[in-house]
Amino acid sequence: MSHPANTSPASDPVENLQTLIRCPSVTPAEGGALTALAAMLEPLGFQVSRMVAREDGTPDVENLYARLGTEGPHLMFAGHTDVVPVGDEADWTYPPFSAEISNGELFGRGAVDMKGGIACFVAAVARHIEAHGAPKGSISFLITGDEEGPSINGTTKLLQWAAERGERWDACLVGEPTNPDTLGDMIKIGRRGSVSGHITVHGVQGHAAYPHLADNAVRGIIKLTEALMCPPFDAGTDNFQPSNLEVTTIDVGNPATNVVPNRASAKFNIRFNDTWTAETVQAEIIRRLDAASADQTLRPGRDPLRYEITWADRPSHVFLTRDDALIQSLTAAIEKTIGRTPALSTTGGTSDARFIKDYCPVVEFGLVGQTMHMVDERVAVADLETLTGIYAEFIEGWFAHAGI
Amino acid sequence: MSHPANTSPASDPVENLQTLIRCPSVTPAEGGALTALAAMLEPLGFQVSRMVAREDGTPDVENLYARLGTEGPHLMFAGHTDVVPVGDEADWTYPPFSAEISNGELFGRGAVDMKGGIACFVAAVARHIEAHGAPKGSISFLITGDEEGPSINGTTKLLQWAAERGERWDACLVGEPTNPDTLGDMIKIGRRGSVSGHITVHGVQGHAAYPHLADNAVRGIIKLTEALMCPPFDAGTDNFQPSNLEVTTIDVGNPATNVVPNRASAKFNIRFNDTWTAETVQAEIIRRLDAASADQTLRPGRDPLRYEITWADRPSHVFLTRDDALIQSLTAAIEKTIGRTPALSTTGGTSDARFIKDYCPVVEFGLVGQTMHMVDERVAVADLETLTGIYAEFIEGWFAHAGI
Repeated sequence: MSHPANTSPASDPVENLQTLIRCPSVTPAEGGALTALAAMLEPLGFQVSRMVAREDGTPDVENLYARLGTEGPHLMFAGHTDVVPVGDEADWTYPPFSAEISNGELFGRGAVDMKGGIACFVAAVARHIEAHGAPKGSISFLITGDEEGPSINGTTKLLQWAAERGERWDACLVGEPTNPDTLGDMIKIGRRGSVSGHITVHGVQGHAAYPHLADNAVRGIIKLTEALMCPPFDAGTDNFQPSNLEVTTIDVGNPATNVVPNRASAKFNIRFNDTWTAETVQAEIIRRLDAASADQTLRPGRDPLRYEITWADRPSHVFLTRDDALIQSLTAAIEKTIGRTPALSTTGGTSDARFIKDYCPVVEFGLVGQTMHMVDERVAVADLETLTGIYAEFIEGWFAHAGI
Repeated sequence: MSHPANTSPASDPVENLQTLIRCPSVTPAEGGALTALAAMLEPLGFQVSRMVAREDGTPDVENLYARLGTEGPHLMFAGHTDVVPVGDEADWTYPPFSAEISNGELFGRGAVDMKGGIACFVAAVARHIEAHGAPKGSISFLITGDEEGPSINGTTKLLQWAAERGERWDACLVGEPTNPDTLGDMIKIGRRGSVSGHITVHGVQGHAAYPHLADNAVRGIIKLTEALMCPPFDAGTDNFQPSNLEVTTIDVGNPATNVVPNRASAKFNIRFNDTWTAETVQAEIIRRLDAASADQTLRPGRDPLRYEITWADRPSHVFLTRDDALIQSLTAAIEKTIGRTPALSTTGGTSDARFIKDYCPVVEFGLVGQTMHMVDERVAVADLETLTGIYAEFIEGWFAHAGI
């Protein structure tokens, strides 16, 4: 470890994390977590703002923006204090908001996703200030309470709110748990896009013994869903896995064995790479559905089937970060602290980085994600100290780079 | 019309039908219908037996067997007095059990399916006796109260019960509504078989963004259900339509867009012709499912998928009646009465004829089926008189044939 534990305010990631876990901040509840975070940052010199985001039909959500310094270069740390529900508390070895330490592991909801990342970054900033004084530039925390929920009153609105107040950033680190197995495995330097949709096929109900008088909607939905998944959309690119579409459900709900149904529906989700945009991938989906609706394999001699499609929510856009200073200072910090070179990856699901990329280059690096969203979510205490060390090296390295 | 209306007991099909319709015999209720029928048959000289069929887990069902005469040849008329539910009574123009006559049509549940057929056959027998005396042989009525229900405590048990008491038959006419548009359109001389099944695919649940860690059960169910329906099982035979399989439902019930499901299920029903037996068609279905489970189009590089199949209820076996005397006397009776030659068909769904065919040759001929199972089920009063005439000619012709 490059930075031994010390006693300056908020410089112990374990204490920081215990404080945060003990705030029951299941989305959309603030649970005291942002107040606790503000109490760590203000003594370090941060200017802390609280911002409540509202939208009709959604719960109000509290968010926090804190900045240390007034000049550039400006490094943002982004994340969320909200956590997913705990499930049945009785299934937990220790109460999920008790932050119990046992056998070198700290238990609690949010331990890795991602109060742990916040706790370490706060500690890293505290140690940087203690060792080097305030950075020659600015550090800010952009922390939402709506990442695990609908993400409507969270990072997007907070970014917009801050930008309207003149905030500009040069780089961002998101503290999500990016490592599959071991700390240092993986930095995320981009994400695939995501589009979800819902299709409904309309046929004609009838008796199973007189199929020519009916038009079985099941025949239609099979061809449409097959066409969505096959052939593959692409073979992947230099930086991305192949795009992949999964039909996540097909539902007809016809209880009568002798009746063919007039209606069938399916939902799907595609994770697409930089071969596509959300718009071109939607156009390709429509093209496939139109072609399949005219396919007569399962509906010989029939007219093209009638279907409807609705797109779920807003799409997530694909992005790839190409900021060498940012990626290299983080990679170097990891190599220096633990002697391993992380993979630069674009795998996995979406994160709030997809919103931040519209404002500045963004990468993601945090704890090991294995227990996130699970009962007995937990983090090795040693990992908290190591990640704090990596973040502190990164802060030093990034300002050295960016200051040139 | 070959037999004018007259006033001997039970010789008016309209009166007979009104009496039967006014008994609310929705399966499994007897509703007084069998008692009313017995009251028509006993004065004609029939020996009437009532038989209650029981089976654990199903309601008791009343059935009726009545025989006139003790010698052969022996002609059976088969049918059912139970009717399907009326739906919302308020939707009916006349109350469904009131047997109102309006504008030359008799309204009521069971008017065509198939109290009307019974009413006409009773009237035809009455007229035959009046004109010719008791037939030189026997006529019996085999009437169940469980044709529209599960068909467990109905015709099968009644046949077995009668056969155990020494009853043997030479031919059977089932009075189901066989005519699509006009009286005389169609005699059914056989029926396709029917097999239903339920398949379940087992995959591995996972996040939609990490499909390689999961095994989406939707991919499996699409290939299995497609293989069930395509290619066609056969191109039809001399006497039968092509066999046809319909997948009647696919259900996954996965509410989460980001999760791929570990389970998907589907139900299907096949109507098969005399290319197959229930056993060979089941073997072909298994062969198709096994081949499709190893198909890698939608599951590249995967092991064969795991699926389960359960067969619903007992299968219905295909049959074709090849009794020339029976078919010709019925055809001749139709030609003589209305001057039309009926089609000899094996189309449509199953009927209790599939059970009777194990005991004697069986054909089906009755009223026009257009309003069966519908609100405002009704029959043209003129059709009741005409069908009675056809049945009376048939009785005369069949005994003349069979007596030779």
